[in-house]
Amino acid sequence: MSIFTKIISGEIPSYKIAENDEFIAFLDINPNAKGHTLCVPKQEINKIFNMEKGLYARLMEFSYDVAKAIEKAVPCKRVGIAVVGLEVPHVHVHLIPLQDMDDMRFQRKTSLSQQEFEETAQQIAANL
Amino acid sequence: MSIFTKIISGEIPSYKIAENDEFIAFLDINPNAKGHTLCVPKQEINKIFNMEKGLYARLMEFSYDVAKAIEKAVPCKRVGIAVVGLEVPHVHVHLIPLQDMDDMRFQRKTSLSQQEFEETAQQIAANL
Repeated sequence: MSIFTKIISGEIPSYKIAENDEFIAFLDINPNAKGHTLCVPKQEINKIFNMEKGLYARLMEFSYDVAKAIEKAVPCKRVGIAVVGLEVPHVHVHLIPLQDMDDMRFQRKTSLSQQEFEETAQQIAANL
Repeated sequence: MSIFTKIISGEIPSYKIAENDEFIAFLDINPNAKGHTLCVPKQEINKIFNMEKGLYARLMEFSYDVAKAIEKAVPCKRVGIAVVGLEVPHVHVHLIPLQDMDDMRFQRKTSLSQQEFEETAQQIAANL
């Protein structure tokens, strides 16, 4: 069972932003930048291009709505997209508020307090 | 006029993989890895989340088909997705055959000969 499935089931807490029958969005707990969000299908699928095309398309549309809300809530030049999946074998779309290219590289990380995580999640959710 | 608009018009040559009325896919000329492909809307739009949602969804579905073909043609652990856009102000979806995380970082680049570019484009196109 992946760590994301444990988040979906509520076994592990998360800073949740949005949820529907098929997908969930929550803040990345080890963010590249403030507002870095993961969009995840509830079905535990390893590789994004092994998703059925319709489910994939709906995940990307769900991510679009979340990204628009991030852009409204978090000051940034734009929101970037990354899908990698070499670590956690459960599809996740990274939505990352960008100031510069280093925000895309998963090397420079940002520390946030619990209060900052909570406020950020609330501000993004309020723009959905 | 962006460099991608010049590629779309044929003013600048490219190693083309796929094209329809709305989108084009061609090899990145400065690739992170062999098979690194860009999927681009013909309409010159700066930010992906400023695209009309339907056009965005069709771009991501076009990218899905190209990614499946890359996975068949190019040995890799999986195909990653990156959308950044801090350099060229014309939406482009990076599809990157991944062996490790460094393939996602846009720092380690791969040199290919003209023949290798041509063969790679042909092999991906043949799997579409």
